[in-house]
Amino acid sequence: MRARGPLADLIVLLGRLPGVGERSATRLAFHVLSADVSFAQALGDSLKEIHERVQRCHSCGNFDEETPCYVCRDTTRNPRLLCVVARVQDLVALERSASFRGVYHVLHGLLSPLDGRGPDALSMDTLEARVRNDGVDEVVVATPLSVEGEATALYVAQILRATNAKVSRIASGIPHGGELEFADQITLGRAFEGRRAL
Amino acid sequence: MRARGPLADLIVLLGRLPGVGERSATRLAFHVLSADVSFAQALGDSLKEIHERVQRCHSCGNFDEETPCYVCRDTTRNPRLLCVVARVQDLVALERSASFRGVYHVLHGLLSPLDGRGPDALSMDTLEARVRNDGVDEVVVATPLSVEGEATALYVAQILRATNAKVSRIASGIPHGGELEFADQITLGRAFEGRRAL
Repeated sequence: MRARGPLADLIVLLGRLPGVGERSATRLAFHVLSADVSFAQALGDSLKEIHERVQRCHSCGNFDEETPCYVCRDTTRNPRLLCVVARVQDLVALERSASFRGVYHVLHGLLSPLDGRGPDALSMDTLEARVRNDGVDEVVVATPLSVEGEATALYVAQILRATNAKVSRIASGIPHGGELEFADQITLGRAFEGRRAL
Repeated sequence: MRARGPLADLIVLLGRLPGVGERSATRLAFHVLSADVSFAQALGDSLKEIHERVQRCHSCGNFDEETPCYVCRDTTRNPRLLCVVARVQDLVALERSASFRGVYHVLHGLLSPLDGRGPDALSMDTLEARVRNDGVDEVVVATPLSVEGEATALYVAQILRATNAKVSRIASGIPHGGELEFADQITLGRAFEGRRAL
């Protein structure tokens, strides 16, 4: 016998969150029920309002309360340097590292023919239009170093060939603090290929 | 720079769930935002309604839409055999194992003097009254085998000494499938103490 009724419904919904299995979902649901009612209310309100209050930036696809988003509105940034990322999370990670002062283009996914995700699903045409219209000098493709990420990067390079923008790819190699002993062969190969003069 | 505004608020709230750190909370929030709006709405509604729709059983403390709860309403169960558990999760686990056909008493916590949690916080008086009024024959104390769980079990045994009920404690020993090699000393000691004739 399992939890029933509304509690079972809540467990099912929580279990649809990524990385949350039935066990974790049960634990979360019981926590919510044991905690103060104000917590459930606040979290419930926040979830119900999030899609209304946070939208995709019409220009770059970033999430913000306003469009254009806080990155696109920032006049101190270089609008001729554009970084292509797969997800808003990647944009947030790059912002946290403070390694980039240009603007972004969020694809909201990667090319994945097996899942039926082609270029149309990834705002590729708006990317090309943006690069042309804004006179972008360089596009840095920061999609993941996975098979899908690499395929998407190649596709981006291809559609931008007709523009004046230079297209580059983020470096692949041994991560900071990483041991060569534990690096896989592909990473080691890339680290050699991408070697730089000291 | 981190996520901002309503998204940051949602991340903070999700981070208050047990076992969800800032990184996971961020991942969950972005998932909610990327998923269909209906999911956020459904989860939000479920959370907002859960305290209203699910209540503590006035008799045993279990969570259900009605009080008395589905266990207390079940007339096929033995009301003179009572199992004391710390949390509703433990009740659900015992029900899943189908090893018990009596009724329950949920303490909603364990004695923990250091955290200021004394007997008053744990519905101990309603437990005693119930054992007396319902003519309970045996009380099985199924609190965890931790220090707090053991202390609570001893306290339950003590307050029920004046009643006619026999008080027992669930067995402690090597878990099913467990290797003796990897069992700790206390568990091994208990396994020997609790040995049974074959």
